[in-house]
Amino acid sequence: MSDNRQIVIREVPDGPLRPDHYGEKAVAIPEPADGEVLVQTRAITIGAGQRAGLQGSASYAGAAQADVVMGGTGVGRVVASNHPGFAIGDAAMGMTGWQEYAALPGDSLTGVDGDLEPELLLGPLGTNGLTAYFGLLDVGDPQADETVVVSAAAGSVGHTVGQIAKIRGARVVGVAGSDAKCSLLTDELGFDASVNYKSDDFRGDFKAATPDRIDVYFDNTGGDVLGSALFRMNARGRIVCCGVVSQYDTANPGPGPRGIPGLLVNNRVRMQGFLVFDYEDRYADARTQMSEWLRSGELRPQTTAYDGLEAAPQAFVDLLAGATVGTTVVRIAD
Amino acid sequence: MSDNRQIVIREVPDGPLRPDHYGEKAVAIPEPADGEVLVQTRAITIGAGQRAGLQGSASYAGAAQADVVMGGTGVGRVVASNHPGFAIGDAAMGMTGWQEYAALPGDSLTGVDGDLEPELLLGPLGTNGLTAYFGLLDVGDPQADETVVVSAAAGSVGHTVGQIAKIRGARVVGVAGSDAKCSLLTDELGFDASVNYKSDDFRGDFKAATPDRIDVYFDNTGGDVLGSALFRMNARGRIVCCGVVSQYDTANPGPGPRGIPGLLVNNRVRMQGFLVFDYEDRYADARTQMSEWLRSGELRPQTTAYDGLEAAPQAFVDLLAGATVGTTVVRIAD
Repeated sequence: MSDNRQIVIREVPDGPLRPDHYGEKAVAIPEPADGEVLVQTRAITIGAGQRAGLQGSASYAGAAQADVVMGGTGVGRVVASNHPGFAIGDAAMGMTGWQEYAALPGDSLTGVDGDLEPELLLGPLGTNGLTAYFGLLDVGDPQADETVVVSAAAGSVGHTVGQIAKIRGARVVGVAGSDAKCSLLTDELGFDASVNYKSDDFRGDFKAATPDRIDVYFDNTGGDVLGSALFRMNARGRIVCCGVVSQYDTANPGPGPRGIPGLLVNNRVRMQGFLVFDYEDRYADARTQMSEWLRSGELRPQTTAYDGLEAAPQAFVDLLAGATVGTTVVRIAD
Repeated sequence: MSDNRQIVIREVPDGPLRPDHYGEKAVAIPEPADGEVLVQTRAITIGAGQRAGLQGSASYAGAAQADVVMGGTGVGRVVASNHPGFAIGDAAMGMTGWQEYAALPGDSLTGVDGDLEPELLLGPLGTNGLTAYFGLLDVGDPQADETVVVSAAAGSVGHTVGQIAKIRGARVVGVAGSDAKCSLLTDELGFDASVNYKSDDFRGDFKAATPDRIDVYFDNTGGDVLGSALFRMNARGRIVCCGVVSQYDTANPGPGPRGIPGLLVNNRVRMQGFLVFDYEDRYADARTQMSEWLRSGELRPQTTAYDGLEAAPQAFVDLLAGATVGTTVVRIAD
């Protein structure tokens, strides 16, 4: 059979990620073993959290190793199957990694609607969207008229969090890293306010944007934004700990925010980490709800798309630099 | 009427508390206004959390002011009453402050059993005991065979937390600041293990004492012990944020612990602050349960007692220096 192009980790980064931390390799297309399915990857998505998996020590994303195929979620079509649940031509989503073909246990794959664009399957209907859905609704539990603040608000998870919070009747404030992103949030996605965390007076702007303080803070960043939010929480506020993008792209994360745990005590704040994988038995219901919101136009997904497997390392670097908006997708085959 | 001796704040401390931050004053015994009750204070209790109220800025304990009577909880007997709920000779508990007599709204007082020792009323049946009860059982929710760790474990709240956790069938590890306290915990109070946080190899000792890691960490200290516990939490662990004694006795608390929020995400940890006052409608039930445990001998309260109102400032300094065990009580009148 012809070649299977792969992007492999060449070197585990000890500072900011560069494209040359990756290399390209071509191997034979694998034969699916018993119970496995051979998937031709159509597109992959990249999430900032994957950077945590490149830090040498294990995180929820596992530990990085040089010379292995970079991991990640993709959608593709079945080209061979030794699993009763999948037939040639089916569309499937799973941990394809950054490669053109992947032989994966059929039990680890999700059958999806092949008529839907990969951007939808990997965005609002994929891990990003489900993360927003369960983190906001289950962990944050916003009520109508409460104030919800989300960081990395123009990102893959954040832009969905804010829109779901609006659907639930909350007042929504997004924190993002450029004026263009901030405008997108308020002008296109229905956020009530937005704050550029690179502003000279971020703390002042943040305070002005949260006159009724904060009931739910959905944290994708940690660091300074978390530190500021801690000082603005209302009594019985909830902080949803989803990601730590401010600390991924470094080998030496800084100390935690001041005021922990004192501010949690004074304001009876609940701060809770979660992983979307714990909600697997409710994915189907969540996808049904998200699909309805997509149809009604209440949820408007955003995507930054790259073409070609070889673009994946640069896409990841761009994502970490804050140069992408919404779900970052790399298209590999039609 | 004769004099009412009071301890007043002379100066708001900007570093470690000293006895001379307080002064003594004698004023006329107040007349109770309409709805008020005049209480002769028999004993007061001092909690480390009161140090937070001396930091100039407001905490849950309120902001400190020079020349006002030091606040605090006490028990006493009613010597005059303009409130239908209290008669002369009744025993009452409330915010007497550090003074011999206090005129207080009857609605703010709790009638108590005058046959019980002030040490019991202010310890296991008072705010300290209720804090342990609700914080551990409601916020921490330990299950049988889970590992519960408590910091400041020989303190007013901690020594009760550990004993309730044992009653609930958990494995209990206490962290305290001297070998004598550590021995008390394991030899007298039934803790399964204890760790001296001043040990040269605290992290190693802590790890050895928590072979199954930690399911519930009851945090009375913040700081280094919290930082160590964060790295030992099991998936879906709970951190009960009760107090921050490591940071009270300073005007400049340090940064928060490393690994926040990353470790909360990886291990799906819930970290939650609480204030006992939010559970007021359940105090009576909790006191009934605590009384049963006291009668059965399952709960053995510890007290460090001082004699005379004038000893209160030194008692507070001792408490903050870790020189007291259990509930710190100052006896003022028989």
